[in-house]
Amino acid sequence: MTTSRSDSAASFALRPIATVRSPLADLAAAPKQAHEGAPEAWLVFEPGVLDGLEGLRVGDDVVVLTWLHRADRDVLRVHPRDDFSNPMQGVFSTRSPARPNPVGLHELRILEIDGARVRVSALEAVDGTPVIDMKPVLRPV
Amino acid sequence: MTTSRSDSAASFALRPIATVRSPLADLAAAPKQAHEGAPEAWLVFEPGVLDGLEGLRVGDDVVVLTWLHRADRDVLRVHPRDDFSNPMQGVFSTRSPARPNPVGLHELRILEIDGARVRVSALEAVDGTPVIDMKPVLRPV
Repeated sequence: MTTSRSDSAASFALRPIATVRSPLADLAAAPKQAHEGAPEAWLVFEPGVLDGLEGLRVGDDVVVLTWLHRADRDVLRVHPRDDFSNPMQGVFSTRSPARPNPVGLHELRILEIDGARVRVSALEAVDGTPVIDMKPVLRPV
Repeated sequence: MTTSRSDSAASFALRPIATVRSPLADLAAAPKQAHEGAPEAWLVFEPGVLDGLEGLRVGDDVVVLTWLHRADRDVLRVHPRDDFSNPMQGVFSTRSPARPNPVGLHELRILEIDGARVRVSALEAVDGTPVIDMKPVLRPV
């Protein structure tokens, strides 16, 4: 433990790397988790980051991070799954999109790569959702 | 697919929710992955988000997202694991901290909860690293 001033006093600006293009047009239609009937989607990458896609292959399993831009960032306690019969709980022990930094975490498979457009398996984010990162899934060694 | 203007033209400000307190003082000493000898660490949460911890329990498995604030955000291709014998590859198919949005993804176990301080298992982030989110691990249903 140190007593130095926290580096976290700063704030940091995210630069979206891609945008979700999906038949999911609105939040009401979006499933809460990918396995609950989410459709395939396209990720359309920004021209400035295309070099970052080099080495990505169809069939790769990746973690995609989104910015759930319509989420309420001032909420710290929720009824999990919007079910009022569930007792209120702190957002950090739930997968609620409402939280101080609404980052969505999605494990997906790459289905197709077409230049700046990457088609992925079941994604529960709505059309227009910004993508902030993509990483390979690490399997236990 | 829509042809509407991308929502991702905007940028988004992250607000750190906690800070890593770790015996890892510098990047040179930090292992590349948690299973490569990373130490336990404390996450010290900001006073404004403590309600979000409600319901968190010792023994819970969580995903912690960090902001790797010392990473180079302008790099799009790297030699994986800083090994120059590995061919250059796009950052989105590697776990390099260098990438447009240097978000670190860590699967951890909660070992102790002491007010605003949460002790977690093996974490490869250095002392002072901002934490931006924490979520429960979802197991396949």
